Amino acid sequence: MKVAKLPTILVIVQVLFIVFFAIFADYAPSANAKYPENSKDADKGGADPSKNKLHSLYDMFQHVHVMIFIGFGFLMTFLRRYGFSSVGFNMLIAAFVIQWHMITHGLLHMATEHSSSFKIDIESLLTADFAAAAVLISFGAVLGKTSPLQLIVMAFIEIIVFVCNEYIGLYFFKASDVGGSMFVHIFGAYFGIAAARILYNSKVEDSKKEGSNYHSDLFAMIGTIFLWLYWPSFNSALAPGDDQHRAVINTYLALASCVIVAFAISSNSKEAKFDMVHVQNATLAGGVAVGTSANFMIGPWGALLIGSVAGAISVVGYKYITPYLARRWKAHDTCGVNNLHGMPGILAGLFGAIFASFASVDRYGNGLYEIFPARAPMENSTKLLEIQANFTISAGDDRSAVQQGGYQFLAMAVTLIVALVAGAITGFIMKMSPLDPVKERHLFDDGHYWETPSDFDEAVQFC
Amino acid sequence: MKVAKLPTILVIVQVLFIVFFAIFADYAPSANAKYPENSKDADKGGADPSKNKLHSLYDMFQHVHVMIFIGFGFLMTFLRRYGFSSVGFNMLIAAFVIQWHMITHGLLHMATEHSSSFKIDIESLLTADFAAAAVLISFGAVLGKTSPLQLIVMAFIEIIVFVCNEYIGLYFFKASDVGGSMFVHIFGAYFGIAAARILYNSKVEDSKKEGSNYHSDLFAMIGTIFLWLYWPSFNSALAPGDDQHRAVINTYLALASCVIVAFAISSNSKEAKFDMVHVQNATLAGGVAVGTSANFMIGPWGALLIGSVAGAISVVGYKYITPYLARRWKAHDTCGVNNLHGMPGILAGLFGAIFASFASVDRYGNGLYEIFPARAPMENSTKLLEIQANFTISAGDDRSAVQQGGYQFLAMAVTLIVALVAGAITGFIMKMSPLDPVKERHLFDDGHYWETPSDFDEAVQFC
Amino acid sequence: MKVAKLPTILVIVQVLFIVFFAIFADYAPSANAKYPENSKDADKGGADPSKNKLHSLYDMFQHVHVMIFIGFGFLMTFLRRYGFSSVGFNMLIAAFVIQWHMITHGLLHMATEHSSSFKIDIESLLTADFAAAAVLISFGAVLGKTSPLQLIVMAFIEIIVFVCNEYIGLYFFKASDVGGSMFVHIFGAYFGIAAARILYNSKVEDSKKEGSNYHSDLFAMIGTIFLWLYWPSFNSALAPGDDQHRAVINTYLALASCVIVAFAISSNSKEAKFDMVHVQNATLAGGVAVGTSANFMIGPWGALLIGSVAGAISVVGYKYITPYLARRWKAHDTCGVNNLHGMPGILAGLFGAIFASFASVDRYGNGLYEIFPARAPMENSTKLLEIQANFTISAGDDRSAVQQGGYQFLAMAVTLIVALVAGAITGFIMKMSPLDPVKERHLFDDGHYWETPSDFDEAVQFC
Repeated sequence: MKVAKLPTILVIVQVLFIVFFAIFADYAPSANAKYPENSKDADKGGADPSKNKLHSLYDMFQHVHVMIFIGFGFLMTFLRRYGFSSVGFNMLIAAFVIQWHMITHGLLHMATEHSSSFKIDIESLLTADFAAAAVLISFGAVLGKTSPLQLIVMAFIEIIVFVCNEYIGLYFFKASDVGGSMFVHIFGAYFGIAAARILYNSKVEDSKKEGSNYHSDLFAMIGTIFLWLYWPSFNSALAPGDDQHRAVINTYLALASCVIVAFAISSNSKEAKFDMVHVQNATLAGGVAVGTSANFMIGPWGALLIGSVAGAISVVGYKYITPYLARRWKAHDTCGVNNLHGMPGILAGLFGAIFASFASVDRYGNGLYEIFPARAPMENSTKLLEIQANFTISAGDDRSAVQQGGYQFLAMAVTLIVALVAGAITGFIMKMSPLDPVKERHLFDDGHYWETPSDFDEAVQFC
Repeated sequence: MKVAKLPTILVIVQVLFIVFFAIFADYAPSANAKYPENSKDADKGGADPSKNKLHSLYDMFQHVHVMIFIGFGFLMTFLRRYGFSSVGFNMLIAAFVIQWHMITHGLLHMATEHSSSFKIDIESLLTADFAAAAVLISFGAVLGKTSPLQLIVMAFIEIIVFVCNEYIGLYFFKASDVGGSMFVHIFGAYFGIAAARILYNSKVEDSKKEGSNYHSDLFAMIGTIFLWLYWPSFNSALAPGDDQHRAVINTYLALASCVIVAFAISSNSKEAKFDMVHVQNATLAGGVAVGTSANFMIGPWGALLIGSVAGAISVVGYKYITPYLARRWKAHDTCGVNNLHGMPGILAGLFGAIFASFASVDRYGNGLYEIFPARAPMENSTKLLEIQANFTISAGDDRSAVQQGGYQFLAMAVTLIVALVAGAITGFIMKMSPLDPVKERHLFDDGHYWETPSDFDEAVQFC
Repeated sequence: MKVAKLPTILVIVQVLFIVFFAIFADYAPSANAKYPENSKDADKGGADPSKNKLHSLYDMFQHVHVMIFIGFGFLMTFLRRYGFSSVGFNMLIAAFVIQWHMITHGLLHMATEHSSSFKIDIESLLTADFAAAAVLISFGAVLGKTSPLQLIVMAFIEIIVFVCNEYIGLYFFKASDVGGSMFVHIFGAYFGIAAARILYNSKVEDSKKEGSNYHSDLFAMIGTIFLWLYWPSFNSALAPGDDQHRAVINTYLALASCVIVAFAISSNSKEAKFDMVHVQNATLAGGVAVGTSANFMIGPWGALLIGSVAGAISVVGYKYITPYLARRWKAHDTCGVNNLHGMPGILAGLFGAIFASFASVDRYGNGLYEIFPARAPMENSTKLLEIQANFTISAGDDRSAVQQGGYQFLAMAVTLIVALVAGAITGFIMKMSPLDPVKERHLFDDGHYWETPSDFDEAVQFC
């Protein structure tokens, strides 16, 4: 019966998804022909087609979409014998997650908002892609060491925890994390690393198949560069007006300085040679590290500084920390997601907490309350009414800057702990034999999962 | 004189194109400095630069543009010895078609609208790309078996028929086909398959050169994923407001479910292995199958269902129908366009006809008349005036839902027949010896058409 | 101390950049939360978030961004042993330039506008990418023959000269060059060729490593096609309204005709075979050649004509002029930038001068003064007031068409001379031994600069 297990499960999953959507999902008003405003001309009180929500988000969405499928997919093709799985399983997992995230996210919001259905619009598509990023980061940690079935189970559990953790961070702690450096990057990285730790098999270290070849490294650069290019969209997609503009600029600058420093530290070796692993990954760390504070008033130089620090830490991570974690802590992290997403994510969280502790109306104007809604004055306070006379904001908790900084830190710490614990538990579940754990000889190898062309074994003769 | 034949023809063609454009083409008002509204400020009755038509369509156009040149171009590089031709001829054909389509489409509309010139704007560029898609789908069926000259002749004839067939479908049958699943996909697929049938050469089956290698399969995935990502733009580019938003959502969902089912069915084999041919192609079938009804109120679950069915049919097609067609019917379809464009296109047409038969004002509001203009009430009817009081529509034919469904079916059937007949005739023309039909030893081989690098023969030693 | 030289310099440079930004850079108002208009609702006199400058330029910027990093980066991977350096150094140089250009451009404008800081917005990001294009074009001329340190020095000097030359062209000569064919393409190409001439080493001609292999040619096509697709954005990004729309159409048409003619002339050889070098490069010449006049009223047929001529000249350049320059003039131009950027840039400048000499209000309406500000009537003239009654323009110099044509020509000639002289001087500086000139055996070879995978030497056995 082994033959039919994965196909059967995938088909059942898809049927259940269709049932869930049939019961609970509907088009949002701006995508729904039935909605009365869409049956009237704009000048007669109807919706203005040119102001449809689609227009303000669609391109940002497509940039993120490219990052998820081309970016993550090709970045992982650096493994010379695992390209089909990298780009193929990346696609499978992401297609699974974008449906499953809509359902879990939808059900949670139905529960908290006492609604009978969840509505789909372009923002649902965008946030589903963000959720896919978290799972694909975890995938990077276990790359080459898991069966498709294990990956589907991981994605299934991870999304549930992801949705809950993000909810806690955004609605309880009221933390600001515009680029998802905490809720996506820290979460995905440490969830994956914890799972990888539990799945650890000492045979992994001996595998001669883990490694790149000349052309697989070039394929990986397709992923790297598209991630690098569209990262400003990832960090700014959900911010409004000047916040969005600033998030684009800060992310762009952090990425630029990160490249310079990553190249510098990479070549600071005995032979003064650059390493493609660093270029493929560490050049992106600036985008993660600036993610939480991308819409803050950190100043252009602040963005450059954050990017520089991230580039340095990330390369050092690849050189020293990844081998150390594998050797000493049995946490084998195939793509080094700790260096690209984990540590830069923590950096982002720390910078976010620090900058938040100094954020003031002097420096942010009323934008302060857009970025940190909990800092807005209490309901019915005179201060709130004064602000609302000029600028539409909701009542908040009248938090001080330092309080907001504390909550930012708390959101990061909770995310880290939740990710580690949930990842470890998921690792134990993934280890169960019905999920077809990978045999030693199939590690980092497409041959067991894919029909391979006749040159496949030739392609790895050089190991 | 063989040396100079193709260059001479290409140069003559390009000179004629320039002459045609000089006589008949002009900028549309929104791209024409001479147009009086462009010489006034917006607040003095001039055109508002920020509302220029370019803005609403340019990004959709660029997404489709990427699909045509990167998507189709790289998807076809899966052939290990035919990568230069795949991506190169793809570019040549598309560059030919986008000019030739502007001319034929322009002349047809000049004739029907009694105008003395045709106007070029961003929409012309977009529809030219759609037309290129049809020809490139046909190219997929004959890939590796045709000379550049044969391809140019094919493109020349195909575009004339394409423009006429689309005109009949849109203006006589008043069928709705927002994503072009009928007029582009069915048309392109069966035109190409019919031509391939006529060009059939039993030696093709013996060629050891037809097949992929490890890296050519990864190059092909670049094409696949960009097609997958931007398909929502293809299906929604020409829809307005909420229709466009809905078309994006439906296409996105159909593609996601299609991936899950395509992977499932792909691995349901003796060895439980995935096949890259399915991942490269069948994952896209959902985008075709939802194309006609992408802007309909099919519900999010309806989109998932259509995508699932398409994924399953497409993989089954690659496994069983393509070999059967080649063996039994001598229709050798190199890329399996029947599975990616043909059958999913028919599915799209059938779903479109069925959903149209149930479409009602209850479910669509006045959007019904945007999607199915022929369902609008007759000129001067009370019903029309009532609707027009709120919502700008033109008079229609007062069709019932079932009538519209019938016309949808008719448009599909006519497209299928026109494509098969015109494709077969074109196949006979392509067979003529002045067009340099491909010799057996040059099948699926760049060597005859391209200066090849020194490692070229090495690159295929594994067959 | 060799080991630490490059890293040390890169880190010092990045630290200095951060200091410069800390002292001089600030967010532009539309990206600055502090700016009073961002603290008010739009209907209370505040800024309308949906009209933030980001929205009108962000997508154009991202298209150009893809051209710089994917386009130029992958285009240069055609060298079979130099792929890591091509795409990696491309990224390093561009990340360096986008920061350095903001500083130099910012300081120049601070000086001329007597301001105490320079402001960063999406336009700064876009123009920084244009500047990167110039340096990357020069990189193409010296590709494979320079150390990273030499490249950083080249970029450092080139940007200073670039900014000054562009300032002279735009503000003194008041030349129009919407697509930067003069200030970016001519400048970058001849700066690079002059540097390559000075760096000439006869051993280059003997190197067996200069050349492509089958897959490196396919990687290069990724670059080619993204450049080709997004070129209309490059040429139109900074134009308003109908000018932008026209620039898109003209560039698209010029690129389409260029493909046809480039393929034609490429295959007009003894063996009637296409050459990938031409397809990778000459197909893009139309985008350069139409760059100066992209927003002019050249007519659709004019765009096709320009593209055709450029395609022909470019292929002829690759076939005959590049070898001649290397042999006779010792100017070895690795990527043939003379054929893709140099000669087509001169063509653009000449067409621009000619078309400008015939531009009239009859043909352009008031758009004439948008495109050629110096042609606007003088301050306080009756003619100016008449125009301003309908259309907002600034006072100009009341230039005639022929005068404007003369200044267009002058801008081109000065750019060409400045580029050649500055490039030659830079070449001499690059030759200095502290900058680690490339040893003969390291020419066109990643091995000296990169940790290479185990198959690296295998990958070039076919030379």
